[in-house]
Amino acid sequence: MDLNADLGEGFGIWRLGDDLALLDVVTSANVACGFHAGDPTTMRRVCAAAADRGVAVGAQVGYRDLAGFGRRRIDYDPGELRDEVIYQIAALDGMCRIAGTRVRYVKPHGALYNTAAVDEPQAAAVVSAVTDYDPTLPVLCQPGSVLAQIAAGAGLRVVGEGFADRGYLPAGTLVPRSAPGALVTAEAEVADRALRMAVEQVVVAVDGGTVACPVESICLHGDTPAAVALARRVRTTLTEAGLELAPFT
Amino acid sequence: MDLNADLGEGFGIWRLGDDLALLDVVTSANVACGFHAGDPTTMRRVCAAAADRGVAVGAQVGYRDLAGFGRRRIDYDPGELRDEVIYQIAALDGMCRIAGTRVRYVKPHGALYNTAAVDEPQAAAVVSAVTDYDPTLPVLCQPGSVLAQIAAGAGLRVVGEGFADRGYLPAGTLVPRSAPGALVTAEAEVADRALRMAVEQVVVAVDGGTVACPVESICLHGDTPAAVALARRVRTTLTEAGLELAPFT
Amino acid sequence: MDLNADLGEGFGIWRLGDDLALLDVVTSANVACGFHAGDPTTMRRVCAAAADRGVAVGAQVGYRDLAGFGRRRIDYDPGELRDEVIYQIAALDGMCRIAGTRVRYVKPHGALYNTAAVDEPQAAAVVSAVTDYDPTLPVLCQPGSVLAQIAAGAGLRVVGEGFADRGYLPAGTLVPRSAPGALVTAEAEVADRALRMAVEQVVVAVDGGTVACPVESICLHGDTPAAVALARRVRTTLTEAGLELAPFT
Amino acid sequence: MDLNADLGEGFGIWRLGDDLALLDVVTSANVACGFHAGDPTTMRRVCAAAADRGVAVGAQVGYRDLAGFGRRRIDYDPGELRDEVIYQIAALDGMCRIAGTRVRYVKPHGALYNTAAVDEPQAAAVVSAVTDYDPTLPVLCQPGSVLAQIAAGAGLRVVGEGFADRGYLPAGTLVPRSAPGALVTAEAEVADRALRMAVEQVVVAVDGGTVACPVESICLHGDTPAAVALARRVRTTLTEAGLELAPFT
Repeated sequence: MDLNADLGEGFGIWRLGDDLALLDVVTSANVACGFHAGDPTTMRRVCAAAADRGVAVGAQVGYRDLAGFGRRRIDYDPGELRDEVIYQIAALDGMCRIAGTRVRYVKPHGALYNTAAVDEPQAAAVVSAVTDYDPTLPVLCQPGSVLAQIAAGAGLRVVGEGFADRGYLPAGTLVPRSAPGALVTAEAEVADRALRMAVEQVVVAVDGGTVACPVESICLHGDTPAAVALARRVRTTLTEAGLELAPFT
Repeated sequence: MDLNADLGEGFGIWRLGDDLALLDVVTSANVACGFHAGDPTTMRRVCAAAADRGVAVGAQVGYRDLAGFGRRRIDYDPGELRDEVIYQIAALDGMCRIAGTRVRYVKPHGALYNTAAVDEPQAAAVVSAVTDYDPTLPVLCQPGSVLAQIAAGAGLRVVGEGFADRGYLPAGTLVPRSAPGALVTAEAEVADRALRMAVEQVVVAVDGGTVACPVESICLHGDTPAAVALARRVRTTLTEAGLELAPFT
Repeated sequence: MDLNADLGEGFGIWRLGDDLALLDVVTSANVACGFHAGDPTTMRRVCAAAADRGVAVGAQVGYRDLAGFGRRRIDYDPGELRDEVIYQIAALDGMCRIAGTRVRYVKPHGALYNTAAVDEPQAAAVVSAVTDYDPTLPVLCQPGSVLAQIAAGAGLRVVGEGFADRGYLPAGTLVPRSAPGALVTAEAEVADRALRMAVEQVVVAVDGGTVACPVESICLHGDTPAAVALARRVRTTLTEAGLELAPFT
Repeated sequence: MDLNADLGEGFGIWRLGDDLALLDVVTSANVACGFHAGDPTTMRRVCAAAADRGVAVGAQVGYRDLAGFGRRRIDYDPGELRDEVIYQIAALDGMCRIAGTRVRYVKPHGALYNTAAVDEPQAAAVVSAVTDYDPTLPVLCQPGSVLAQIAAGAGLRVVGEGFADRGYLPAGTLVPRSAPGALVTAEAEVADRALRMAVEQVVVAVDGGTVACPVESICLHGDTPAAVALARRVRTTLTEAGLELAPFT
C-alpha cells in the first residue's frame, strides 16, 4: 500500500504544512509545481528530501491561481490547460533530475482534481498532457472518476486513491463537503478505515453498509500539527498490521 | 554563422513581435519561458514551429517580472535565481521534447543579461543552473563578460554574440544606450557590420577604429515590422556573400 | 446617447488597442484596473487623457487572471469577489482623483460580465461592492440581466447598453457567439443598427422582427484598426443624425 | 508615543503573523496593500478590526514582488514606482472608507524602505505618490534617511520611527544585519530601549555611548509568537511607566 500527501505548498516567504515531517510518513509526495502553490527553491528542496528518503515524487498540477490556491474552478480552454499541465510536470521533472530522481506520477490539485473527476474536456486535457509528456506516468485519482476513465481509455496507468478521513456514499463516491458525514475526525476511526481500505479494499459508507474501495494509495493531509499526528497514526496502524508501505510506482 | 533572436515574448492575449516571420530568418530562437514573458501554449507553438524549420531552441531565461518584462534589475538571492533558471529551462525543455527537439542553449534576458555580464553572484547563479540541469548546454552571451568568464571557468561552452545594430567602444564593449552612437539605424550599415562580424570577426568602433568581435552568432530583433525587415536584410546579405547560416549547436 | 469602449487594456510592455484614438470617439471609457489587464501607469495616463477630453471614466472590473485576460469564468467565493471589485474601483478612483476626476460608473469585464448576467451570487457580489464603495455609482450592463435586476433591487442606477455589432434574438438577448448571426460585420449595417438603438430604442432581431432595446449607451470596440474605424463611423452616423453624444453620468 | 507594526501580510491561503493579537498592542497598523503581500479580503478585515480598536491604518506600500515578499531591491522606473504606490494607497483607502476610517499615513516596506532610505530617485517616487494622492498624509520612516529629507523638502510631515530590537551605530543609524550587534534579543533589554526611546529620545549605541533617537513611533514585529510576546512586553513597559500610547496621526 502507498500513502500520499500534498507537499511543497508554500510560496516565497509563506509556508503551509510541515514538509519534512510528512516525508517521514508518506511513500509518495505530491509536489506543487508553482501555479497554485510552490516555488522553484521549495520544489528543489522537497524533491531532494524525497529522493533521500526513497519517497516517490508526483507532479501536483493545478490551475494558475495563487490567490485562490487552485481551489476555484476555472473554465480553461482545454488546449491551454493541457499546455500548463505539461509546463508544470516538466519544471518539476527538472528539479527531480537534479535530485537524482524523476517525476513518477501526476495528480491534479484542488479544483482541477474535482473538475477533472466529472468534466470530460478538463479530464481529457490532463490526460493529453501526460500522454504528450510521458505516457508511462500513472495518474493518481479517484477510482471511477471521469479522469480515471479517460486516462484508462488513453492507455495510461490509473492509480486509485482513498480518503480515510472522508465519508463515502453507498455508490462509492465521497459525501459532499456540505453534507452531514462528510468528514471523519476521530483518530481511531480514521486509522481503522485506512486499514480496511488497505487490507480489504472496502470502506463503511454513511448508511452503515460496506462498499468497495479499490485503491492502491491512501491520501493523507499535513496542513496542521493535528493532521501530521493523524497521518503518523495511520502509518503506524498499517505497518503494525504487517502491511508493507511502498510507492505504487 | 548563426543568427539569433528573441521569440515567444507574448503573454496570454498580448503579442510582441512576429514569431513566424522571425523563424524564417534566424537559425537560433531564444524562447521566453514564462517568467518575464511567454506562456505555455505560446512556448509549445514556437518550439514546434522552430523544430519544423530546423531552428535551434534556446531557453531565454529571465527574472520573475511580467510587469517589468524582465528589464529591471532585481537583487535576487543567488540560490533562488539559480532555481528559477533551472525551472524555466526544464519547463521549456518539456515543450521541446514534445516538439521532437530539445533546449540547445541558454541565453539570459534583459536585466538578467545585463546584470550577469558584470555581477559575479548572478552570473554564477546562471552558470550553476546550467551546470545542474545539463552541463553540455552552451551559454549565449557577450564575449568577455563576467558571465562568459564564469561559464568558461565552469567548463561550459560559451558562444559569443554580436550586435550589428549597436555601437561598440574601442574596448570591444557596447556603447551605453544613453550615449551618442549607441544605435546604428541605417539598414545598409547594419547589414555591412553584420557581414564584417561574420567574415572578419571585427566591428568598427565609435572612434572609427576596428576592434575584434569574436562571435559565433549575431543577435537580431523582431519587435517591429521594420526590425523584421532589417533582420531579413542581414540574412540576405550574409547568404549572398556565400556564408552558410546554421545553428551554432 | 453615450458611447462606451474598453480602454487601458495593456499590461507592462504589452499594448492592446489604440487608447488615444478611442478616446476621441467614445463618451465613456471603461478602464481596466489591473486584475485582468491594466497597470498603474497605463491607468493614470488613460484617466488623465479621458479627463482632458471630458470622457467619463468607469471601472472595468474583472477577475484576477492576467493569463486569461479575465475571459475565463472563475468560481469565486462571493465575499472575495466583492472585495476584489472594491479594491479595483478604489485603485482606479485614486488615479482619477489625481487626474481631477472620479470613477463615474462600474462595468464588469469579460467572464465576470457574462457570469454576472446570469449568476446570482456573482451579480450580488458586484452589487455589494458598488454599494459598499459608493452607492451613487451606476452599473453599466445588459438590460434585463441578473446583474441589472439585482443592482436595481439594491437601489443602484442601472444603465443598459446595446451592441450594434451583435445579433439579437427575438427575446432581446444576444445571439450566442457560436450560433449563426452572432456577429454583424458590415460597417453600414452596424452604423444603422446603432442609429436605431439610439433613436428608436429598437434593434432588428435575427428573425427579422424588431425588438425593444432600451439602452443609454452603445458599446464599441477598439482592439484593431478596423474596429476603431467602425467606432468612428458609428459616432459620425449618430452625430450627423443630430444626436447629442454625452456621458450618461 | 506610537507603536507600529506590519499587518495583513498573508496572501490567499497563506498567513503570516497574528494580526488580531498585534492589533491589541499597536496604535498604528501598517497594512500590506497587495503588491508584496496582502489580498483584498485580508485588507478589508484588518482595516475593519483596526477601526474597531481605534488603531490608525497606514499604507504599507511595497514592490510588486509576491515571490520575494518585497524584500529584493528592484530597479524601478521612478514614474512607474510612483504610480504603483498611488495605486496601493488608493486601494487600501477604499477598504478603509468602507470600514469607516481612512489611510492615515504611508510606510514603505522591505526593500523599498531600505532603498528609499538611501536612493534619491526611489525616495522621490514615494514622495511624489503621497503628494499626488494626499499631501496631508505623513510618511513613517527612519529619521535622517534620504526619504525623510525629500519628504520634508516636499512639505510632507515626516514621522521618525525607532527599532528597539536593533543595534544602533554611534552615527544614529542601524547596525547592518550582517554585522555583530545588529539584533537585540533579550526581552528586558528591548523593553528598556523602547522606554528610553520614548521618554528620553535616545538609544545606547554599540560602542556604549548614547545617541539621539528622535522618534514618534516604535516599530514592533509580530511574525512569531515570541515576537508578539515581546511586543506586548514593550507596550506594558511603556504604559506602566505612565506613557500614553496613541496614534501619531
